[in-house]
Amino acid sequence: MITKQEIHKLLESYDQKKIKIATVCSHSALQIFHGARAEGFKTIGIVTKDKLPIYEAFPNARPDEFIVVDSIADIPIDDLAAKNAILIPHGSLVEYPKLRAEDMKIPIFGNRASLRFERSRSLMFDWMTQAGLKIPKIFKPDEIDRPCIVKSAGAKGGYGYKVVKTPEEFYRRVTDRNDIIIQEYLVGIRVYPHFFYSPFGKIGYPAGKGKLELMSMDRRVETNVDELYRTMSVDVWVDPTFRIVGNEPIVIRESMLSDIFKAGKGVAEAADKLFGGMPGPFCVELVINDELEMYAFEISARIVAGTNIFPTGSFYSAYSYEMPMSTGRRIAAEIKSGISLSKLDKIIY
Amino acid sequence: MITKQEIHKLLESYDQKKIKIATVCSHSALQIFHGARAEGFKTIGIVTKDKLPIYEAFPNARPDEFIVVDSIADIPIDDLAAKNAILIPHGSLVEYPKLRAEDMKIPIFGNRASLRFERSRSLMFDWMTQAGLKIPKIFKPDEIDRPCIVKSAGAKGGYGYKVVKTPEEFYRRVTDRNDIIIQEYLVGIRVYPHFFYSPFGKIGYPAGKGKLELMSMDRRVETNVDELYRTMSVDVWVDPTFRIVGNEPIVIRESMLSDIFKAGKGVAEAADKLFGGMPGPFCVELVINDELEMYAFEISARIVAGTNIFPTGSFYSAYSYEMPMSTGRRIAAEIKSGISLSKLDKIIY
Amino acid sequence: MITKQEIHKLLESYDQKKIKIATVCSHSALQIFHGARAEGFKTIGIVTKDKLPIYEAFPNARPDEFIVVDSIADIPIDDLAAKNAILIPHGSLVEYPKLRAEDMKIPIFGNRASLRFERSRSLMFDWMTQAGLKIPKIFKPDEIDRPCIVKSAGAKGGYGYKVVKTPEEFYRRVTDRNDIIIQEYLVGIRVYPHFFYSPFGKIGYPAGKGKLELMSMDRRVETNVDELYRTMSVDVWVDPTFRIVGNEPIVIRESMLSDIFKAGKGVAEAADKLFGGMPGPFCVELVINDELEMYAFEISARIVAGTNIFPTGSFYSAYSYEMPMSTGRRIAAEIKSGISLSKLDKIIY
Repeated sequence: MITKQEIHKLLESYDQKKIKIATVCSHSALQIFHGARAEGFKTIGIVTKDKLPIYEAFPNARPDEFIVVDSIADIPIDDLAAKNAILIPHGSLVEYPKLRAEDMKIPIFGNRASLRFERSRSLMFDWMTQAGLKIPKIFKPDEIDRPCIVKSAGAKGGYGYKVVKTPEEFYRRVTDRNDIIIQEYLVGIRVYPHFFYSPFGKIGYPAGKGKLELMSMDRRVETNVDELYRTMSVDVWVDPTFRIVGNEPIVIRESMLSDIFKAGKGVAEAADKLFGGMPGPFCVELVINDELEMYAFEISARIVAGTNIFPTGSFYSAYSYEMPMSTGRRIAAEIKSGISLSKLDKIIY
Repeated sequence: MITKQEIHKLLESYDQKKIKIATVCSHSALQIFHGARAEGFKTIGIVTKDKLPIYEAFPNARPDEFIVVDSIADIPIDDLAAKNAILIPHGSLVEYPKLRAEDMKIPIFGNRASLRFERSRSLMFDWMTQAGLKIPKIFKPDEIDRPCIVKSAGAKGGYGYKVVKTPEEFYRRVTDRNDIIIQEYLVGIRVYPHFFYSPFGKIGYPAGKGKLELMSMDRRVETNVDELYRTMSVDVWVDPTFRIVGNEPIVIRESMLSDIFKAGKGVAEAADKLFGGMPGPFCVELVINDELEMYAFEISARIVAGTNIFPTGSFYSAYSYEMPMSTGRRIAAEIKSGISLSKLDKIIY
Repeated sequence: MITKQEIHKLLESYDQKKIKIATVCSHSALQIFHGARAEGFKTIGIVTKDKLPIYEAFPNARPDEFIVVDSIADIPIDDLAAKNAILIPHGSLVEYPKLRAEDMKIPIFGNRASLRFERSRSLMFDWMTQAGLKIPKIFKPDEIDRPCIVKSAGAKGGYGYKVVKTPEEFYRRVTDRNDIIIQEYLVGIRVYPHFFYSPFGKIGYPAGKGKLELMSMDRRVETNVDELYRTMSVDVWVDPTFRIVGNEPIVIRESMLSDIFKAGKGVAEAADKLFGGMPGPFCVELVINDELEMYAFEISARIVAGTNIFPTGSFYSAYSYEMPMSTGRRIAAEIKSGISLSKLDKIIY
């Protein structure tokens, strides 16, 4: 992993008045460009040729400049550095097989170390435990005695996840057993709160040395599991799959916001201890059971796609901002604060 | 119950230029404070210590003043009256066991008598019948011959609701049989229209001597029933529970707005006859079956939590207001009208 | 069908400075009036007496003028022409049994020929095939070997749709076999992208000689199928029905926008070839399976009711427009462009 020091040295060479915001054209890039533009930044889109027409189609979310690449793996690091660009990481950067964003010598918004924790199941487990989160019971294959979900490594959008109920079913149905995790299948409602942690800490819930804001909240929609009830109703049974296709808004009972913020605070403070903090957006993926207990089953240590519902703000951001504030825009606003406070090194490393 | 006359006498002692809006920090308080602020009111939050950081976290929804209490039951009535405060009731006030808002000598927005009707299953039944609503068939335990939902008293967020199909199942599974109601379990889509009834009646659908506005609409999300299909798909069967965890937006077929407004009008006019009217927000909880018939299964006689999706207005409020109009803001706007028309006594008793 | 030439002749007689926007008070009329008003047009609502209070209830969506009719079938064509009105078609016009909008001698926004393709199952099949869309396998009754959905003709909001699994079940349960279609029942998540195709082509995705905009996206909510899992969870099995009662928002994975736009482009370009183009709004009704493949099961060749979620714009329109842009408003903006470019004949025929 590139060190903080190397990045900060590179950052010092940047013209602070001409900093640009760059990201890969995928995942939540439209929102990131749209938000950066609202905060007055010039933007750069790293795009593969086939995606170009999409990012040209939306005038208010179109980057000011495109860098066309053959593959997302070919992020033109030197070119970006020459252009004073800060790279905003998102799910596609974590997920893309050949890409290790934490090894790229380019200023990245947030703490690149967090991406490593997101990618590894065992580091993730440590993180959630240290955060004080209730987590689903973890099983070894031979211990499976209830419905469990078998997850493959990395943020692959739920691809290949399987539900199994017995060791036999596990061995029969799960063939790629590399870096998998077997979690108890929790029954309840999933909610995905979108947090933003700022070390500059003007508004929000106190956490560590900074403040935690609740930007918005969604529920993921996965194919085919989230419409399987339709075929079940005519007695047709198909194996569930869990590939994310989209997101829908959900607002939570106001009395549960305490627990939501406590979960976020735990995650932010554990990040402080484990890898030096996590400025910027993150998401704690929760299931709420019939006792209104919250269980966390994953953390996303960067902007999540659920924020794409809210490019003009949400039912939560309205309580913090007069202007329409998306997570994408919040990122840009934080970089702007970092520049004006001469503290970019607190949020970029 | 405190009488109208007592409240109006107290209200007369208020400095009309310094009226403040107060509520208990829970349920829909963020929206109420946010809306009151938009209409220029000072606000007071009655808050327990553990909730304080939540209500401090959102600068645009933070009350101007906090009154910290040990328990929601300790609403500081005299203190509020001394501060010219009008109390806005919400679900937590109806639900909280020791609290009887209708007995509190403090001006309450709306008609406090409605809270009594909301709390009692038998009064609710009369109200819905008088309103001309289709309602689910009510069963005595020994008559149960189809799926029925057994509900406990009060707005407890669905806690302890059970579905039973036979008398035997009822006696086996329902142990607390105090003030319960056994309703036919209706099959269809639930929708929760959020109405606002104004006796000042500038815009909206004619009802009684005033006008009825449709502010927004939601669908409740309940744990675990609303994700049970996920486990069912792998042949795991868990008893459904019905605890509300959140809300999601839904817009209804425009051709069904007639029936929606008729339901709201029926409820508002029955309230006129039964207990002298119900100014302010309310919700009729509906199920729409496969013949597009609407059945009402409950009325909430105050702001409902589903409105929390819409602090900056909804797909319906946009058709009535240029500015972002939430139900919380609508309440404040109504109080403002009451003050300027010198008719606060029409909406506060 | 009335010819393009006849309509254009009529259109030439219109006072271009006094063009009004008219529609039938149903389906998405509130949005259409609201949008037309935002673009500065006067509006006319054709309304039955029973619906009048609804369209009077919303001051910002109330048409400037009502024409009260006994039945939607009685659209006062000559009266509308005398008032310089352009008629906006929507689902109620396609669906209403006695009404053939394509035969009415009044300028209609969009290409009236598209309504004929929407109404006929076989023309629809040709259109989807020419568009290059993956479509569900079509079955003859005796070939049914998997779950199939049997659809009746026209956009009847899902009324009478049935799921059958065998020829025997088909013959037993489907009695009206007139102009039906038997489609493979696809397992996956339904999404309904709302497109707007403009031949004037300023912004958006290139398609034909114009540009394609993505305005918003929804998922339909159908009774009783979309809450059947609730009764299934207590082992109560009811036949699913598919009547649309409403719509909820959904945002799609950004990486899938390519496929979404390709589907829309295919449909727009096939419309060019098959019936001379389809300016204005349309919707391709899609199911996304567990391989993230998109199957189209219908096209709506006009504004769809799902756009009613977004009278002040959506998570997609925000990327194209600074102002709150609904599909209803987009229609009015297009007519305004047509007037100012003296090219109304490109979008009205």
